[in-house]
Amino acid sequence: MQIGMVGLGKMGGKMAERLRRGGHDVVGYDRDPAVSDVSSLEELAERLQAPRAVWVMVPSGEPTRATIEALAGVLSPGDLIVDGGNSHYVDDQRHGAELSAKGIGFVDCGVSGGVWGLENGYALMVGGEPAEVERVMPIFQTLKPEGEDGFVHAGSIGAGHFAKMVHNGIEYGMMQAFAEGWELLEASDIVKDVPGAFKSWRQGTVIRSWLLDLMVRALEEDPDLERLEGYAQDSGEGRWTVKAAVDLAVPLPVITAALYARFASRQDDSPAMKVVAALRNQFGGHAVTSRAGSVEKGADSPGADVAPPPEATG
Amino acid sequence: MQIGMVGLGKMGGKMAERLRRGGHDVVGYDRDPAVSDVSSLEELAERLQAPRAVWVMVPSGEPTRATIEALAGVLSPGDLIVDGGNSHYVDDQRHGAELSAKGIGFVDCGVSGGVWGLENGYALMVGGEPAEVERVMPIFQTLKPEGEDGFVHAGSIGAGHFAKMVHNGIEYGMMQAFAEGWELLEASDIVKDVPGAFKSWRQGTVIRSWLLDLMVRALEEDPDLERLEGYAQDSGEGRWTVKAAVDLAVPLPVITAALYARFASRQDDSPAMKVVAALRNQFGGHAVTSRAGSVEKGADSPGADVAPPPEATG
Amino acid sequence: MQIGMVGLGKMGGKMAERLRRGGHDVVGYDRDPAVSDVSSLEELAERLQAPRAVWVMVPSGEPTRATIEALAGVLSPGDLIVDGGNSHYVDDQRHGAELSAKGIGFVDCGVSGGVWGLENGYALMVGGEPAEVERVMPIFQTLKPEGEDGFVHAGSIGAGHFAKMVHNGIEYGMMQAFAEGWELLEASDIVKDVPGAFKSWRQGTVIRSWLLDLMVRALEEDPDLERLEGYAQDSGEGRWTVKAAVDLAVPLPVITAALYARFASRQDDSPAMKVVAALRNQFGGHAVTSRAGSVEKGADSPGADVAPPPEATG
Amino acid sequence: MQIGMVGLGKMGGKMAERLRRGGHDVVGYDRDPAVSDVSSLEELAERLQAPRAVWVMVPSGEPTRATIEALAGVLSPGDLIVDGGNSHYVDDQRHGAELSAKGIGFVDCGVSGGVWGLENGYALMVGGEPAEVERVMPIFQTLKPEGEDGFVHAGSIGAGHFAKMVHNGIEYGMMQAFAEGWELLEASDIVKDVPGAFKSWRQGTVIRSWLLDLMVRALEEDPDLERLEGYAQDSGEGRWTVKAAVDLAVPLPVITAALYARFASRQDDSPAMKVVAALRNQFGGHAVTSRAGSVEKGADSPGADVAPPPEATG
Repeated sequence: MQIGMVGLGKMGGKMAERLRRGGHDVVGYDRDPAVSDVSSLEELAERLQAPRAVWVMVPSGEPTRATIEALAGVLSPGDLIVDGGNSHYVDDQRHGAELSAKGIGFVDCGVSGGVWGLENGYALMVGGEPAEVERVMPIFQTLKPEGEDGFVHAGSIGAGHFAKMVHNGIEYGMMQAFAEGWELLEASDIVKDVPGAFKSWRQGTVIRSWLLDLMVRALEEDPDLERLEGYAQDSGEGRWTVKAAVDLAVPLPVITAALYARFASRQDDSPAMKVVAALRNQFGGHAVTSRAGSVEKGADSPGADVAPPPEATG
Repeated sequence: MQIGMVGLGKMGGKMAERLRRGGHDVVGYDRDPAVSDVSSLEELAERLQAPRAVWVMVPSGEPTRATIEALAGVLSPGDLIVDGGNSHYVDDQRHGAELSAKGIGFVDCGVSGGVWGLENGYALMVGGEPAEVERVMPIFQTLKPEGEDGFVHAGSIGAGHFAKMVHNGIEYGMMQAFAEGWELLEASDIVKDVPGAFKSWRQGTVIRSWLLDLMVRALEEDPDLERLEGYAQDSGEGRWTVKAAVDLAVPLPVITAALYARFASRQDDSPAMKVVAALRNQFGGHAVTSRAGSVEKGADSPGADVAPPPEATG
Repeated sequence: MQIGMVGLGKMGGKMAERLRRGGHDVVGYDRDPAVSDVSSLEELAERLQAPRAVWVMVPSGEPTRATIEALAGVLSPGDLIVDGGNSHYVDDQRHGAELSAKGIGFVDCGVSGGVWGLENGYALMVGGEPAEVERVMPIFQTLKPEGEDGFVHAGSIGAGHFAKMVHNGIEYGMMQAFAEGWELLEASDIVKDVPGAFKSWRQGTVIRSWLLDLMVRALEEDPDLERLEGYAQDSGEGRWTVKAAVDLAVPLPVITAALYARFASRQDDSPAMKVVAALRNQFGGHAVTSRAGSVEKGADSPGADVAPPPEATG
Repeated sequence: MQIGMVGLGKMGGKMAERLRRGGHDVVGYDRDPAVSDVSSLEELAERLQAPRAVWVMVPSGEPTRATIEALAGVLSPGDLIVDGGNSHYVDDQRHGAELSAKGIGFVDCGVSGGVWGLENGYALMVGGEPAEVERVMPIFQTLKPEGEDGFVHAGSIGAGHFAKMVHNGIEYGMMQAFAEGWELLEASDIVKDVPGAFKSWRQGTVIRSWLLDLMVRALEEDPDLERLEGYAQDSGEGRWTVKAAVDLAVPLPVITAALYARFASRQDDSPAMKVVAALRNQFGGHAVTSRAGSVEKGADSPGADVAPPPEATG
């Protein structure tokens, strides 16, 4: 079928390619004229036959919002927009209502697959009215991986991105679980072949998974991960997961701990730990590492006392 | 090769069967004469040709300890014991030292695979001296899954069980991550097809894994998990993981949270939360759910005041 | 000075009383005519001399919003509203902007003190323009405790409730710390006199605090907290604290854990733990506690095997 | 009464002084002859009249163990040793049994009070047989603060240090709660007067406490805590608390999070976060901060694509 694709970056460009390989007629628009088939959204609308379907694949938040608003200005009643970006489900619900007022349909679609999607297909989690989801089903069929899985129509508008958000929350927890296991193995001197242990787990174990496969690959390239810093961004979906859980009074200790570990990894120094150091200094005369690099003698400072006394307290 | 197998329960029995299918000569001993090839450990030692190899597959802790001590009394210098149970790595180190004093070799082997191992093979994590590991390599080769993974000689004595312990710690974190994701999806009314979302994730996503496959199977059998209670045992290895981390000053927030969630699941009522309720009652006159089922009127109790006031505090 | 007080419930009624004892002229309004000085907000506005000051002391959220909107309709430019409820700081900023457009001033004030405030005074955390805060300073001076502390002008509009929100977040963490300590003492059979231990900590220790005093009182009334269920509400400010932290990428592991413990305390059964139970059942044939109360025999079920085998895994 | 004091460091020296001010006859021993009253433990035993009482105030672990063993060699049946250090309760139970075999009594005593104890008294948590505790009660009476609290006979041997251990666990949680609150206030730009907010909380609030007083003092000396690094030791008792909880299946999310925050504060770089970074790089081509300081272009790297695409995943 024919579809417009707005945003031909790393994700959108590859998805357009997979769709073309699948026989679809893709008209692409991007701010970069070098990769764009049309020079404007107006031209995109002209090139597409009504009723039109346009897939939006730009960053979530303001860029997606601006793109959907601009499209609403050039599309017609009966047309349909699919938001394939990483939008917040709350934004979906607003977008759906605004477009509905203009007679334009809206489907949200969470996409997983990353750089591997072109060849292997993209996992798609979709929200929207059944009739509208049905209209773009040929597109979904081509984008998704072969086989019976990799696609779900999860519910009405917002359900696709909500499901994708929870997927990412689970991913945060799984990644942190592997990370903690690796750190513990490295900290102990008992297991000598840590990459070998990870590799061995790929068969016959409970934790075998694609993330484990990636972990093995990473350790093959850099067995002690010496070339990396312990620094991790978060993409927003982890935060939304935690905030949704707080709103729903659902305890998420593991996913939240994984998110907080990422927050902490980006701090040069922990502000909270300055407070702990300050309090320890106040009540116990504990040794404190000061900015100047000198160390004050404290109760637990070796050599401070002839017979080193026990600490007064923690 | 020839091997003795002590403990022919659910795990040991199936492992003996897999070994026999692989052409090995297994002499089994169990307390239950109905499944045992010999009537005593003495007879087991007689039936095996020196230098003997005996695989111990009984519960960790006291049963394993007692079995190894009894074997030490009937085996000879040059013989070898493999502990395939879920022993603590600290116990391994003690067992290894005690057996070494008698000239008996010792190898520890963490085993993963559960009820699926007979057909698919068992993942094996092994610790011990290279020469001793080499002696029982034919056994390991038969037990492990086909393919290049599923086996690691992780280090010296204790390294096998340490690696298995960490594997289980990672498993705790992964399971809890899936569990939290499911709870959040169920708590929200946005995603209508929760089993469908999990099923869709089996292809093209970052979280695809054997645990996800099992989750899909569980949801196929019982879509809302209505037939289960939210109650989970822990097997000891999660506890050892956390204690090892505490000893090594390694922060394990996710694995620990997963362990604590299991602890909490087994409490009829949370003692800690009684304290929180008691304190809230003391400072704020907050509504308290008492044992008697009656609810005292408190500051946040609707109807307690004509114009319900804000809470004084948390 | 003269002030209107809207909301004469448990908090507002006592604050009005403390203000009258301090010589202020308080005109109170409540939906309950039995405690109200005037029959409507219109009459309240008539009774107060311009420029008027009105303290709003009703539940946060919709009741506060509706009250402020209604007051905006009866007050005049130059008047001032103080929101003493537990409002979200984001609501304050909206209320401030809306009132400013009508020439009406706005000050937000977080209040701590609970049922003890009438006698001991209320801790006040205030946000707003300096000139407007100054106008109601006589009121703050009377409400606050004697002494140099108990009052802060923390910043512009929203700062008062933000500071109160963080105060409550800290309170959540402290309460949970005491709660965990008590649970651990009770779980061990080493310390026989748990109430005595708490009482002893009131002097000379690092943890002496008002919450400890309350804890001692609670244990005097009910030494084993038998009369309470482990069930705790949360007032909203804990949730806002966590959400603010997530927005600001600040890790709050302790405050969040305290909030989640409250969430979990209100669940009859943990949905997440059903998943853990289901997964354990899938991979290991682990014993599962089913709704029907029967227990399936599993790998770790005593008696399931003649020589109980080790668990396959966690 | 007469008492020997072994260990005259920062804690023991001040305790000896408080005892002398209280009229007791203290014979002190320290490895440093400059502060010691006797030149050896033998001489200490000679100087004390039987039945002797000796207070041991040296670091926990090996120093305490060695001191108690040495004392056991010079004391006589009927004598009594008090361990006032921060010993593990498990060590107490071993020491008690070993001394009992020689007819020597043993009392364990957890001490809180730090550098403030000389003037204000020390909080004492005591374990042991009633008759033996009674024998040294005059010493406890002088050491403890004035007033009815500050002392508990918590149970038999080990109960004193167990209670002190839990006290310190609670302390960890409380300190972290204040620390997180401060970090959140600092991270937001809404509250301008953070030290003022803390100071205000000293009266009328739920969180007023000695730790808050110390926090206010610390912020008076260094309002932004600029002179400190976010680096905190742990004294061992936090670790024991967590391990005791794991043994007893008691969930301690807050105290554990506080301990882990200290562990993390001492890491230059988080090993676990290297794994998260490595995995993100593997699956998403996410930007990675490498050791060399250069940043690889990734999916979320501004400028990497003309229309920046959404991330494939978290």
